[in-house]
Amino acid sequence: MEALKQRIRTSGRALNSQVLLVDMFLNNQVDCALMDEIGEEFKRLFEAEGVTKVVTIESSGIAPAAMTSLRMGVPMIILKKATSVILSDGILQTEVFSFTKRTSYQLTLKTEFIQPGERVLLIDDFLANGEAAMGASKLIERAGGKVVGIGAVISKNFQPGMQRLKEAGYNVKSLAEIVNMGEGFVEFADNEGEKA
Amino acid sequence: MEALKQRIRTSGRALNSQVLLVDMFLNNQVDCALMDEIGEEFKRLFEAEGVTKVVTIESSGIAPAAMTSLRMGVPMIILKKATSVILSDGILQTEVFSFTKRTSYQLTLKTEFIQPGERVLLIDDFLANGEAAMGASKLIERAGGKVVGIGAVISKNFQPGMQRLKEAGYNVKSLAEIVNMGEGFVEFADNEGEKA
Repeated sequence: MEALKQRIRTSGRALNSQVLLVDMFLNNQVDCALMDEIGEEFKRLFEAEGVTKVVTIESSGIAPAAMTSLRMGVPMIILKKATSVILSDGILQTEVFSFTKRTSYQLTLKTEFIQPGERVLLIDDFLANGEAAMGASKLIERAGGKVVGIGAVISKNFQPGMQRLKEAGYNVKSLAEIVNMGEGFVEFADNEGEKA
Repeated sequence: MEALKQRIRTSGRALNSQVLLVDMFLNNQVDCALMDEIGEEFKRLFEAEGVTKVVTIESSGIAPAAMTSLRMGVPMIILKKATSVILSDGILQTEVFSFTKRTSYQLTLKTEFIQPGERVLLIDDFLANGEAAMGASKLIERAGGKVVGIGAVISKNFQPGMQRLKEAGYNVKSLAEIVNMGEGFVEFADNEGEKA
């Protein structure tokens, strides 16, 4: 998605080979007009999948997922990050390790929101190691749903997440596939015929 | 806002005189078409104020604030809830006590996103004791911004927040003002000529 890549080039801040700050337009200050374009693009990519729910993970995924949900005309479900195990009927949890924050959290789903047979599109801001997306997919499947698509706003393809999800059989799309980065530069994959 | 009150009546779950669950359409599963109507309504209520930024608090405020930001054509800023004090240039924090969770957190603003003179509309899902809104307003003002409006999706007017914010001089609007509630019932204020 060219508008997004252009924004990453102009407003993103690559600190080193691992960390890309996008807090000017995606994570902290949010350009909701761009999020709306992102929602349209995810709709275009996944509308053939018969999606019944958009699922995301709090809190950076919420804005792009909300626009996708609005454009696709299906509800959004927010998976919460709990700090402790909740033993309660109707609650499913799985532990997710965050490489960014170096801590674990309990990704939490209320099962009433995912009915058996539900066709789920999972949307998140970043795909890096794939821990969050794998955990979320596991929860959705334990509730009886089917993950028919995974959409990342930005993927760091030089980290293992994209490969892991594809090998697990998921239909994964990223709107900005980064193949290499370092202090002050970001290099995108040559998707849609575009050279970064 | 009648569509919202109707949804609270049909899908909200008042557990007792204090707790209203709206996790079917606002907090956990989110009806983004309704959020879009909410965004339109906040735009209508505050568009005369010359708003330059919409500010919200993670994570339940993000969906309605994102739609307000989209409709008003200004960026959204997400105030983060940190668990510890961050001593860093460009970071402002204030402690907020959550009556719901019985714990405190450090509400956190990156000052680069609020320029002096910025005209801020603060949007949150619930207004109850007003702790979060007062804390957020304080941060915005410390950064040099002016809080030109505070919009709550739902206010519990029998709790002190609405009164506190009005007494502090803020222009506060709520789309669903609850004056009384108990197990299985919710009573709305007679605003806009509507009887609940």
